[in-house]
Amino acid sequence: MSESLPKILITNDDGNAAKGLRKLVGLMRTLGDVTLISTDEVMSAKSHSCSIRERIYVRLVRQEEGFTEYRCNGTPVDCVKLGYQKLMPTPPDLVVSGINHGMNAASTVVYSGTIGAVIEACMNGLNAIGYSLHSLDPDADFDHLDAAILEITKKVLKEGLPKGVCLNVNFPKRSEEPMKGIKVCRQADCRWVEYFNDLVDENGEPYYNLDGEFVSDDIKPDTDLWALDHNYVAVVPTCFDWTAHANIEPMKSFEKITV
Amino acid sequence: MSESLPKILITNDDGNAAKGLRKLVGLMRTLGDVTLISTDEVMSAKSHSCSIRERIYVRLVRQEEGFTEYRCNGTPVDCVKLGYQKLMPTPPDLVVSGINHGMNAASTVVYSGTIGAVIEACMNGLNAIGYSLHSLDPDADFDHLDAAILEITKKVLKEGLPKGVCLNVNFPKRSEEPMKGIKVCRQADCRWVEYFNDLVDENGEPYYNLDGEFVSDDIKPDTDLWALDHNYVAVVPTCFDWTAHANIEPMKSFEKITV
Repeated sequence: MSESLPKILITNDDGNAAKGLRKLVGLMRTLGDVTLISTDEVMSAKSHSCSIRERIYVRLVRQEEGFTEYRCNGTPVDCVKLGYQKLMPTPPDLVVSGINHGMNAASTVVYSGTIGAVIEACMNGLNAIGYSLHSLDPDADFDHLDAAILEITKKVLKEGLPKGVCLNVNFPKRSEEPMKGIKVCRQADCRWVEYFNDLVDENGEPYYNLDGEFVSDDIKPDTDLWALDHNYVAVVPTCFDWTAHANIEPMKSFEKITV
Repeated sequence: MSESLPKILITNDDGNAAKGLRKLVGLMRTLGDVTLISTDEVMSAKSHSCSIRERIYVRLVRQEEGFTEYRCNGTPVDCVKLGYQKLMPTPPDLVVSGINHGMNAASTVVYSGTIGAVIEACMNGLNAIGYSLHSLDPDADFDHLDAAILEITKKVLKEGLPKGVCLNVNFPKRSEEPMKGIKVCRQADCRWVEYFNDLVDENGEPYYNLDGEFVSDDIKPDTDLWALDHNYVAVVPTCFDWTAHANIEPMKSFEKITV
């Protein structure tokens, strides 16, 4: 590997064959030395899971100038831990995750394996970006993202991100019109509301299948969902401090409880 | 079930036989009608995982006056979704998760299945509390927590919690001295730093085992770790808005990028 090029670690949660992952690898290889560590299985909705009891098996799949590829039986978070602690000679300058098939905007961020990997990197002091496309199509068109991904990534490589902050970047799916630009915004308070399909398996055993609908009741102009709905790229500075700081003082009344 | 008693949904991430879970059931049964939905497997470090592709099988294990118990093959987040959407006749007044064997303070909150369940409930507008003990001992002593858990729970049942806020409550393990009181505090910026054990399985295949040490470099007096270290109960108001709000304005420079 070249000493002068930035070292970029890539992972995702859609499995190693995903079109979005391969697109991201192609783009990142124009910017630096790439190490790809992906998962054997699809890891959507695995959030920040990590393998504290399971054995982690890792395989070197490919090694060539500027590109090294591993696969493992772990989670996206495991991939980040493996990369910077074990498999890469030095910690990466940047961790990128995605490009996810499906948006990780609004409160859906909590379920995302893509964003789990990004937050894991951020917790360990690494610059980290998650890229997601607002389309679940496995054959989605990613080509309209090239310029934005390259420029956002170059800016982060050059300037770094503030301590404790990573980027959650969501793109609208390709439309007739070109994307309008970038909005730096907040996570909308919108979420999936589930229902359960009552099904019966081949042995006659009843089981449930989780399904749901996305409830969009907070699409204000300062939110990521508004940006996506209006054909903008949504960039949300995201953190792993989940303290509701504004509620600390009002909740001091709990300190009156005798224990 | 009585119409007048509060309806309490309990889950956890240590599996249905955990001593901490059974302790919590006993305490909650003195306060309301309890529905327990626990997981077949231990779900530590499964975070906010949910079963979007897997079949979810649910079994009714016990039903008696004021207490209904289910088990499923899902995650703690699935248990909450099942409870309020499918298994309980009306949504619960309160969701409690725990008592976890091991603390979920500082940045370790991101990995926790216990807290995943709490955040899931909070996202759906339900009052929710996670209780954790700073001891990994499967036979840990939980009796010193009785008064605090009962009083905190009663206060939340009576007053409710602010929209979008849940409680992450961590207890020090039993010591010679009684606990000193409650501190309402922020999540410390401390985390696990991993190393990987290089092992070989029974077939001669190399694998890794994730291990690590907890790095405590932010134990300020306003943090949950400081509270635990000084024999206080740590109560952190916790949210699922992970936007780094203070960074939105400074990062508007990203909007200058041409996409």
